[in-house]
Amino acid sequence: MSFCLEESIEILSRTPAVLSTLLGGLPEEWLHCREGEGTFSPHEVLGHLVFGEQTDWIPRTRIILESGESRPFEPFDRRGHEAFTVTRSNAELLREFAALRSANLEALQALQLDERALDRRGMHPSLGPVTLRELLASWVVHDLGHIAQVVRVMAKRYREDVGPWREMTILGPAQ
Amino acid sequence: MSFCLEESIEILSRTPAVLSTLLGGLPEEWLHCREGEGTFSPHEVLGHLVFGEQTDWIPRTRIILESGESRPFEPFDRRGHEAFTVTRSNAELLREFAALRSANLEALQALQLDERALDRRGMHPSLGPVTLRELLASWVVHDLGHIAQVVRVMAKRYREDVGPWREMTILGPAQ
Repeated sequence: MSFCLEESIEILSRTPAVLSTLLGGLPEEWLHCREGEGTFSPHEVLGHLVFGEQTDWIPRTRIILESGESRPFEPFDRRGHEAFTVTRSNAELLREFAALRSANLEALQALQLDERALDRRGMHPSLGPVTLRELLASWVVHDLGHIAQVVRVMAKRYREDVGPWREMTILGPAQ
Repeated sequence: MSFCLEESIEILSRTPAVLSTLLGGLPEEWLHCREGEGTFSPHEVLGHLVFGEQTDWIPRTRIILESGESRPFEPFDRRGHEAFTVTRSNAELLREFAALRSANLEALQALQLDERALDRRGMHPSLGPVTLRELLASWVVHDLGHIAQVVRVMAKRYREDVGPWREMTILGPAQ
């Protein structure tokens, strides 16, 4: 096991700047490209991350600390971001994500979690019992996964343009 | 086809800041973790990117413009970065990459490539004939692929720590 709360906060605190550096001010074609139907564009990834800040990580942390396994988490709505995401510019979503993340990490630090608190268990509505430590580790991995998704979706815009280099791993199997 | 030289330069110019935001100042465990034998750690990805700036993208661009298909590119040495990478700190590699990338993009812009120049062909030692446009599109995809690799390698540090969330796509198949 490798989890370290301090390092996790450090990594989580960087994600808004990483995405802002990657995406800020890019032409619309790069922000709205996607890999296929039902998948997220970079713009929608931002909406999904904003929605996670609002409804997932810190709310679930509080449920674990307040109610333990007796109160299952609200199921996360994978499409809950859609309504507000289409009405926001990319710059607005980047700002909103940065503000929410910053407030949530302050809230997390204010909880002063020790190893005993990280061992506390909650009830995921489909995965079953989980610890607070597992929830927070998943927050980090979730961020990193969506950064990987954003750059992969962007790379695929040039799938044909690379010619014989189309065997590059990130472009996925030839189609 | 989606390639646009101006947009490619825009994306290429951001990679050093993206990697610096992701990695700058992180504990050594995050910089030197890897997915398996023979794969790159985040630190080695930086070394590989530095080596690409020195030997791959702009040198090959010049070969295409000066000699066309008559002079095949030097084969790229996938291990050519190893000797200097072990002697450099991560901060040094981040600085070196940023400086080389900046100089290379200036050199690229100074060439004032038009569509006709982008159509020019060179000879890849194993892939065969390629156009300058394909080379430059591959530079962009190569950057994005290695950003994805860095965050994937980082995410896998927490593969066990996430508990029941280990089905998350970026963690890969269960082991």
